[in-house]
Amino acid sequence: MADVLIPFDLLKSTLQRALKQVGFEEARAEACADLFARTDLDGVRSHGVERFARLLHYIEEEVVFPDKSPVLLSKAGFFERWDGQLGPGNLNAQFAMSRAMELATEYGIGCVALANTNHWMRGGSYGWQAVEEGKIGICFTNTMPNMPAWGAKEAKLGNNPLVIGIPRKNGPVVLDMAMSQFAYGKLSRLAQTGEKAAFPAGIDSSGELTDDPKTVLENQSAVPMGLWKGAGLSLMIDLLAAILSGGKSTKDIGNEKLESGLSQVFISLDPKVLGLDGWFEEKAESILADYLGAEAFAGKSVFYPGQQTLRTRTRNLENGVPVAAKTWEKLVDELR
Amino acid sequence: MADVLIPFDLLKSTLQRALKQVGFEEARAEACADLFARTDLDGVRSHGVERFARLLHYIEEEVVFPDKSPVLLSKAGFFERWDGQLGPGNLNAQFAMSRAMELATEYGIGCVALANTNHWMRGGSYGWQAVEEGKIGICFTNTMPNMPAWGAKEAKLGNNPLVIGIPRKNGPVVLDMAMSQFAYGKLSRLAQTGEKAAFPAGIDSSGELTDDPKTVLENQSAVPMGLWKGAGLSLMIDLLAAILSGGKSTKDIGNEKLESGLSQVFISLDPKVLGLDGWFEEKAESILADYLGAEAFAGKSVFYPGQQTLRTRTRNLENGVPVAAKTWEKLVDELR
Repeated sequence: MADVLIPFDLLKSTLQRALKQVGFEEARAEACADLFARTDLDGVRSHGVERFARLLHYIEEEVVFPDKSPVLLSKAGFFERWDGQLGPGNLNAQFAMSRAMELATEYGIGCVALANTNHWMRGGSYGWQAVEEGKIGICFTNTMPNMPAWGAKEAKLGNNPLVIGIPRKNGPVVLDMAMSQFAYGKLSRLAQTGEKAAFPAGIDSSGELTDDPKTVLENQSAVPMGLWKGAGLSLMIDLLAAILSGGKSTKDIGNEKLESGLSQVFISLDPKVLGLDGWFEEKAESILADYLGAEAFAGKSVFYPGQQTLRTRTRNLENGVPVAAKTWEKLVDELR
Repeated sequence: MADVLIPFDLLKSTLQRALKQVGFEEARAEACADLFARTDLDGVRSHGVERFARLLHYIEEEVVFPDKSPVLLSKAGFFERWDGQLGPGNLNAQFAMSRAMELATEYGIGCVALANTNHWMRGGSYGWQAVEEGKIGICFTNTMPNMPAWGAKEAKLGNNPLVIGIPRKNGPVVLDMAMSQFAYGKLSRLAQTGEKAAFPAGIDSSGELTDDPKTVLENQSAVPMGLWKGAGLSLMIDLLAAILSGGKSTKDIGNEKLESGLSQVFISLDPKVLGLDGWFEEKAESILADYLGAEAFAGKSVFYPGQQTLRTRTRNLENGVPVAAKTWEKLVDELR
């Protein structure tokens, strides 16, 4: 599928127009469009414009409400619970991380547990949001069931992404990973071209690991990263998200007609308030210099999480943001 | 290797005598022996009595000091930094989780960052410690370099264990996992019997995944859980542990003559202070009932992290704690 290169500002303004058409007020349309456009700008194509049509569909189906924002449910110092009121997931998440950072400025740490929200699209956005203000950001979300427990035939676990961002002058470190070894989006693309996954990607009907994307897609049997270990971590994330927010669990989300009403947790730490200034940058530099200094196998390179993002961003700002031609045409066609 | 079944009290008192011989005062000898004996009691044999000789060796080598305890370095509300003074790693860790729980009772959350400490032995101990007081416990540690970055030949990452404990009346959920897919101890046992690992366990000299434990042991090339994903998470844990504590990174630990001077972080959340009482138990029940209700493949079972621990504990309390006969003989022989 051919790509077109769209200047960032045009990409954003086009998305913004589309959002206004479906009921977003001006400022919220801009903020939501900005999050989508920046996702493609940073090269995370699975969760940007390619996912925009699904948001519009969810709005049509009345499981995402453009004009709803989080409301405060309870506060205990650094810890606040908010009801996302089924507002747009990325705007809700951006608000929640922003609030967690405010609390971190006051208490050293801030934690916002958000119930009743929607898919946050690119989780890394909220890690970057924190590090760009010099704060540590940690967040996680549950999802619908899409991954079997270890040993099981049925998908009971979510792929429950986890994001950890650490600020750094010479390039932040931002980990953004789902608990499945491969994303279903990735497996769909492989299935279309008839390729196998580079590593076992799921479980076949007899319970064995398989690298065949079609089997994994049919059985909804994505393998957890680290097999039983990632399954365990996914369960803990669901427990923490549901318990801290008081919101829906992966199981509960599976009972909805569409993936909606998620539970999320946003944590921020302020290195200044915690008194870490003295060594923060130096430690990070020393660790990353050693890490990047590892001798790599021929044809391989060693990267830290988020390292390639800044390069991709710079390139796409200069050359335009790659978007699938079909997706772009459809987006523009539907503007009134 | 044949096992003997040792009554828990005898196992503990024997370890306690051995610790007194190497300079532990009475109460600390008992606490340290208790942590070791409970590790075997709970069936985590890799980190209990089998590892006791290594502690004695480290004391001889003067990298673990029996009489040293943590001292407070700085405090910012819920967040305290402590210097472990190279005291015994398990006593230091138990103290740190205990202090994190005290802070959680006051602030809702407590965080103790511990620099200059030693191997905590079984990480799960401190997760269980928290859940047994009805608190959430999260802790992680860095280690010496023992795992290559993804794509790299050299071990630059630690296997940096992560522990998450969630209290629950009908059996707590306690995840205790290192970032390597398999522990080196496990691989050593497989190598001795000539078995292969059940899944890829490391990287061979050409950079390919291998299930041959000997190759992995020789190359110190344990594969991260989830391949690049676990490598990323390991790096984040090292960054957080070193930055929050101000202590040594995995790289720094690699420069020591023995694995010593680790950095650890202990976090506790008090569900009561955070106002989660209303739904805490109910949510956890609902999630776990659904999870355990998953249909399993023939011959497989679905367990949640920590589920088997209570059963093992009960059985070992009744029948005696299995200890390798050779290890037990050596321990008893060396008592004066």
